[in-house]
Amino acid sequence: MGATFVYDFAQGNKDLSHLLGGKGANLAEMTNLGLPVPPGFTITTEACRAYLADGDLPPGLPGEIDAHLAALESTMERRLGDPADPLLVSVRSGAPFSMPGMMETVLNVGLTDASVAGLAAQAGGDADAHRFAWDSYRRLIQMFGRTVCDVPADAFDEPAHDLDADGLRALVAAYQRIFEEHTGRGFPQDPREQLDLAVRAVFRSWNAERAVLYRRQERIADDLGTAVNIVAMVFGNLGEDSGTGVAFTRDPATGRAGAYGDYLPDAQGEDVVAGIRNTLTLDDLRERDPDSYARLTGIMSILEGHYRDLCDIEFTIERGRLWMLQTRVGKRTAAAAFVIAAQLVDEGVIDLDEALARVSGAQLGRLMFPTFDLAGAPPPMATGTAAAPGAAVGEAVFDPHRAAAAAARARDVILVRRETTPDDLPGMIAARGILTSRGGKTSHAAVVARGMGRTCVCGAEALRVAADHLTVGDQVINEGDVIAIDGSTGAVYAGAVPVRESDVARALVDGGESADPVVVAVRRLLAHADARRRLGVRANADTGPDADRARQLGAEGIGLCRTEHMFLGERRTLVERLVLAVDDDVRASVLAELLPLQRDDFAGILRAMDGLPVTIRLLDPPLHEFLPSLEDLAVRVAVAAERGGRDGHDAELLAAVRRMHEQNPMLGLRGVRLGLVVPGLFAMQVRAVAEAAASLAAAGGHPRPEIMVPLVGAVQELEAVRAEVTDVLRLVAKETGVEVDAAIGTMIEVPRAALTAGDIAGAAEFFSFGTNDLTQMGWGFSRDDVEASFFTKYLDLGIFGVSPFESIDRDGVGRLIRIAVDEGRAARPDLHIGVCGEHGGDPDSIHFFHEVGVDYVSCSPFRVPVARLEAGRAAVAGVGTSDTR
Amino acid sequence: MGATFVYDFAQGNKDLSHLLGGKGANLAEMTNLGLPVPPGFTITTEACRAYLADGDLPPGLPGEIDAHLAALESTMERRLGDPADPLLVSVRSGAPFSMPGMMETVLNVGLTDASVAGLAAQAGGDADAHRFAWDSYRRLIQMFGRTVCDVPADAFDEPAHDLDADGLRALVAAYQRIFEEHTGRGFPQDPREQLDLAVRAVFRSWNAERAVLYRRQERIADDLGTAVNIVAMVFGNLGEDSGTGVAFTRDPATGRAGAYGDYLPDAQGEDVVAGIRNTLTLDDLRERDPDSYARLTGIMSILEGHYRDLCDIEFTIERGRLWMLQTRVGKRTAAAAFVIAAQLVDEGVIDLDEALARVSGAQLGRLMFPTFDLAGAPPPMATGTAAAPGAAVGEAVFDPHRAAAAAARARDVILVRRETTPDDLPGMIAARGILTSRGGKTSHAAVVARGMGRTCVCGAEALRVAADHLTVGDQVINEGDVIAIDGSTGAVYAGAVPVRESDVARALVDGGESADPVVVAVRRLLAHADARRRLGVRANADTGPDADRARQLGAEGIGLCRTEHMFLGERRTLVERLVLAVDDDVRASVLAELLPLQRDDFAGILRAMDGLPVTIRLLDPPLHEFLPSLEDLAVRVAVAAERGGRDGHDAELLAAVRRMHEQNPMLGLRGVRLGLVVPGLFAMQVRAVAEAAASLAAAGGHPRPEIMVPLVGAVQELEAVRAEVTDVLRLVAKETGVEVDAAIGTMIEVPRAALTAGDIAGAAEFFSFGTNDLTQMGWGFSRDDVEASFFTKYLDLGIFGVSPFESIDRDGVGRLIRIAVDEGRAARPDLHIGVCGEHGGDPDSIHFFHEVGVDYVSCSPFRVPVARLEAGRAAVAGVGTSDTR
Repeated sequence: MGATFVYDFAQGNKDLSHLLGGKGANLAEMTNLGLPVPPGFTITTEACRAYLADGDLPPGLPGEIDAHLAALESTMERRLGDPADPLLVSVRSGAPFSMPGMMETVLNVGLTDASVAGLAAQAGGDADAHRFAWDSYRRLIQMFGRTVCDVPADAFDEPAHDLDADGLRALVAAYQRIFEEHTGRGFPQDPREQLDLAVRAVFRSWNAERAVLYRRQERIADDLGTAVNIVAMVFGNLGEDSGTGVAFTRDPATGRAGAYGDYLPDAQGEDVVAGIRNTLTLDDLRERDPDSYARLTGIMSILEGHYRDLCDIEFTIERGRLWMLQTRVGKRTAAAAFVIAAQLVDEGVIDLDEALARVSGAQLGRLMFPTFDLAGAPPPMATGTAAAPGAAVGEAVFDPHRAAAAAARARDVILVRRETTPDDLPGMIAARGILTSRGGKTSHAAVVARGMGRTCVCGAEALRVAADHLTVGDQVINEGDVIAIDGSTGAVYAGAVPVRESDVARALVDGGESADPVVVAVRRLLAHADARRRLGVRANADTGPDADRARQLGAEGIGLCRTEHMFLGERRTLVERLVLAVDDDVRASVLAELLPLQRDDFAGILRAMDGLPVTIRLLDPPLHEFLPSLEDLAVRVAVAAERGGRDGHDAELLAAVRRMHEQNPMLGLRGVRLGLVVPGLFAMQVRAVAEAAASLAAAGGHPRPEIMVPLVGAVQELEAVRAEVTDVLRLVAKETGVEVDAAIGTMIEVPRAALTAGDIAGAAEFFSFGTNDLTQMGWGFSRDDVEASFFTKYLDLGIFGVSPFESIDRDGVGRLIRIAVDEGRAARPDLHIGVCGEHGGDPDSIHFFHEVGVDYVSCSPFRVPVARLEAGRAAVAGVGTSDTR
Repeated sequence: MGATFVYDFAQGNKDLSHLLGGKGANLAEMTNLGLPVPPGFTITTEACRAYLADGDLPPGLPGEIDAHLAALESTMERRLGDPADPLLVSVRSGAPFSMPGMMETVLNVGLTDASVAGLAAQAGGDADAHRFAWDSYRRLIQMFGRTVCDVPADAFDEPAHDLDADGLRALVAAYQRIFEEHTGRGFPQDPREQLDLAVRAVFRSWNAERAVLYRRQERIADDLGTAVNIVAMVFGNLGEDSGTGVAFTRDPATGRAGAYGDYLPDAQGEDVVAGIRNTLTLDDLRERDPDSYARLTGIMSILEGHYRDLCDIEFTIERGRLWMLQTRVGKRTAAAAFVIAAQLVDEGVIDLDEALARVSGAQLGRLMFPTFDLAGAPPPMATGTAAAPGAAVGEAVFDPHRAAAAAARARDVILVRRETTPDDLPGMIAARGILTSRGGKTSHAAVVARGMGRTCVCGAEALRVAADHLTVGDQVINEGDVIAIDGSTGAVYAGAVPVRESDVARALVDGGESADPVVVAVRRLLAHADARRRLGVRANADTGPDADRARQLGAEGIGLCRTEHMFLGERRTLVERLVLAVDDDVRASVLAELLPLQRDDFAGILRAMDGLPVTIRLLDPPLHEFLPSLEDLAVRVAVAAERGGRDGHDAELLAAVRRMHEQNPMLGLRGVRLGLVVPGLFAMQVRAVAEAAASLAAAGGHPRPEIMVPLVGAVQELEAVRAEVTDVLRLVAKETGVEVDAAIGTMIEVPRAALTAGDIAGAAEFFSFGTNDLTQMGWGFSRDDVEASFFTKYLDLGIFGVSPFESIDRDGVGRLIRIAVDEGRAARPDLHIGVCGEHGGDPDSIHFFHEVGVDYVSCSPFRVPVARLEAGRAAVAGVGTSDTR
């Protein structure tokens, strides 16, 4: 005997959704609760997997179907397709995870030329009954043709409305001809053959293109398969005392308590979905059919009590008799998720831990950003990748410097670029939003925008971006024209769209009182997350104002203060002079000019985070990032030469840039290497930190700077820098008379650092995982390069479920992290360990970091509440069991 | 009680060199053998380490010196510096590893204004004795001043020759004035103070600049410290019946059996070193002093029997009495090492295993390359890094295409470039040698040259390399002028230098009979290595002729056949067309043109290696490596535009190059990614392999191709390619009717591949470690970029002992290799595992690969004998115990 492939509804329960699909498991659950479910049975996902693997039904399945069908016929006291008194069934897909509308369903299976009259007799035998029977047959041929036999949907285009029974009978004849034309055979008159073909079609629909795409988007595994439910038909289209509807036990949009739903009299489920007629409310149902209404609300109350959560249901009333066709824990908006979770706590249904498990960081993230009020807005002119959420409106500006200048004149600006580079930073900082025509979710534009909390739409490929305008089709947007971009949907609009600010974000930043139930619920669950979480949450911030905002949003320090942004803008010329410096004296004088500027940078951040740790990363990127591009310079010099002229500065700069050019700058002279090779550079930075901290401490503050050395691969590198840092700290303490305690630690971002973490911990008081670089080097691909060239293909091929730059790759990069945590702690038990890569704000990754024992995560300020929530969820979920989608 | 800091010679033995230094340990050994060693004692390296750490003698040391000095005085029946009958001592450095001439020695300690007369009386009291006594005092002041008190050496510049006792007495007075001028104090008249100061000076000399440099070069640890030997003085300068000499028990240059040495009558050791007078041979000594000669040769025979190896010694004869001042196992040339090891086997002193342990791959490597006969050659005009050994003479050519053209006209060419890129390959292949002015041992030029067995000197910074000439100082070398480069020393000569071919290399390639004792010994030890080694040895070769040579040199297959070189030269335009291809049809037609070319490539190699495995790596580098540089193209297009013209092809190419441009090509679209993204590319290569193999097999051959997929990071990538490869193999088998079995495996070169090796082994029949990429990604630095910018600094700082591109980094990259071997084998016990990176030919790394259980190494053809030898040495040495320098 092989596996059991078929379960009667009475045999299953809600915990068998992996086997029976969500629909089948919940139909079984309702059956066992004694609720009015039409009788039926479920063919398992296992049968589907076997069918998809072998191309045929697994041996044993047909026999099991026969047996269950016989039992169903016996229960219903009718035989499938019996000409005199036919049993009709629906054949419904039902996957383990909800894939609404993605797969197939066939209703009215069992109708034939012979049984249509029997159905009419069942329905009463009057004109309406005949009309109903022929319409049901018409529906079967149409659905069966399209779903089972791939007849194009638009082949059945003749209107069925307002036809009487004769008209429908003629239409059935026409549909049968259409069916035969497309399939080369007549419409099957054997009810059992109809059933078998429909089952196979539902199995196959698992691999339909739209289903595959949906699963990829929703990160649902491709190898689950769908179950098939065979259910006795009940009819909502038998007159005004019949109908069909969907309902929710609470409002899924706002979370408001109380039943909520739509009802359509004299209709079948597909009519509700098609939206042909306007639906009634449940209140209307109460007036029309108080008995059914009472039964329905009673059942909803039973279901909510049983499932302990918002349920949605589908029901049909057949001549005054209520049937439950489906239930499940219902989807809801982000706002409703928070409100309902808090309500259920108040109602004593769940505790706060469970409430926390029922909301997600992704939902909170959606609540934090402004949205467009799209009522009356025109359709978008283009759509790109929703790269950094928010709703931004402003003048299109096509150059970063002009963008910065316009922002300085208090204009709202959207920076529009083909793609962005570090040179665009001034413009990105100044802009409300960033729009690019190239690159995806992990492109430079997207990553930087998320880091800075700017709205970003990227890779809007329909746009042709030029130097001072863009075109899309024959529409032209010139510099200064107003556009609007929606970072949550990827939509790009010509002209202004009204923006609704996020009440949640305002409330979290302000900290003021609010009666908004969403704000109240968010605050309550965040407070519980804070009480439960083991992970600390810090922010990545490079400026005083960013640090301020991060603190308001709950950051417990700065986990990453990058110092490279401090070398841009007007200070770029100082970097040029540093690079061109011919000897130590020139270099020292440039560093002396940079010192007070850096000191002010650090003072602002330390002041904003007074009393909390501020991890300052010494300069990381290669110096040539601060210089003009080799290609541009070479062209400039060549063209100048062609004109007989010569720009001495350009030529000198070109020589320097060429000298410093690297084939693979990501793998070149940067981070600690730069610090060891450029005399005085790190010492200047550390002195700036120490002097800023000393003067704050002298003024009564409690600065807690931490010095972080980037790109360390060997403990010897760290020891060399550590010696220099310690000397400078001691010197400044002596000069200022103020002892400032600054921990010295390192990024763990080079694979070798993770692999030798036990040694490195000997010289480091803390580790901070640079998960971006660790991912780049662990996989051997650079974020800047690979996304455009092969990530899409890789997602298509299933090599990734999700980009490893978005969610941590647990098996590979994650293994390096585990090694470093375990061996670092073994060597130095009080080692403090954080994460400051992009992954620090990603829900899935936060659960992983909790699991491996990291002390804190650090993320961009606007992600701080999300990280707090997810860290709390990780703590209550136990290890690795939470669904964080 | 602390440690014992002083050992009498009778207390030590030869195995205590870490504590007593090499000299002290061997003096102790000879003392215990009953050989005539002047009495004395040794202050340990531990005392030195304590002194260097604290800046003062460790407590207890002065007391121990007192006690041992008193014992010495008692043995000698004289007191140190006693005016009437002084004991004099030498104070000699002696480190655990030989550092010849690097540290300090002071002789005649104990002489003062008062004791000089006592010494004269000891020596006989005649005029010669007075002359001797004053000359000894003169020597002490000079040595002590220079060594202990940092008086510049040239301060004591007055000639001491031919002076009588009075003249020497006046010279002593003059030297004492010089001493006082430079030190501000009189010459110490307390013998005990002289001794203490001399001991401190020897300790300090451990950190003298030259000693530090020497240690770095020889990879000797900086924290060992030196011992100090205090030895009763014996005098070789007491007349014609006295003298001093050095001797070897066998000829250290050729290995010829029989004692060999130099003798200088009436002289002290420093005179031999100074080379002021011509030395006599040992045969001369036999005639002058047959008794001493007999004693000396008797002692040498005892020593060789005792040490079971070539020994060198220093001896002094004082008035007919022989004293042994030093012995040790002697250094020897590479040729002598092989000859002596074989001789000792024949003499029954050692067995073949021990003989194998006594030679090294580095020595064999030196024997494999031609050398210059420098007699009468001018001094080099510049010196660079000795990057790939050999001696090459030819016309300087400054462009790769002109170099290829000249070579085609049968000219010997040296390709001279500032640095090389893949574009230089045709020239590098055509040239005898490669000379660059930039880059080090791991630069492109160096790596490629070693791989191809071309001589290379790189980073000769004194050269100014222009487009058609080079200048060094005011010397100019024009294109076509003959130059000579020595890849073993880094020397660059203007003009021709006679070349001596390597007899060993010729014999190994030819395989013919040879009576040359070096060839005989090398063959014998290689045969023993082959018998003992567990590691297989394959070669990296991309062409039939290279594969032929590799096979002659003992390669058991090809471990890496790179296919990228097959896309250069005239085929480059095909790659351009491939990149520019607008649709699948164009791409397919280009691939169809490439197919027969690739098939011929593979046929040649498979034929050369018939019956042996040939691992063919599918295309690895990014396609834009085959395109012109972005900078050049951009300049060309801009200049053309400036002139009002426009080259359509250039503009199109520029657009393509810009589209494909990557910030970090090493981390970009290459390897398996390319194969998955460019339809048909890998399939074409696999088809070419399969067709070539099928036609060889049909002709009676036994081709054994293996298909290797580069840059895999996830098993899913390999599975996708594997499916495609299997399809092509099956198709070709069907078309040709010949079944060719081709294993499918992967490079392990991405850290993630090593970390998920258990999964990857599920889809791989073999692994081959690409240790270059694994090192690049494990450390996060690219070979092309970092060497120039910071490797020198890192070696200076001691962050590396040696570049990790040269010898495998055991702790970091090596750990990844261990993980992959262990977990790959656990998942698939019959997994075959090799190494095909540069490290496959590196002696240290080969020992590591043996240790971790790799099956074979693969290296460039000329390294094959070296790898065979080292694999044998690893097998006899046991795990990790062998000194492979």
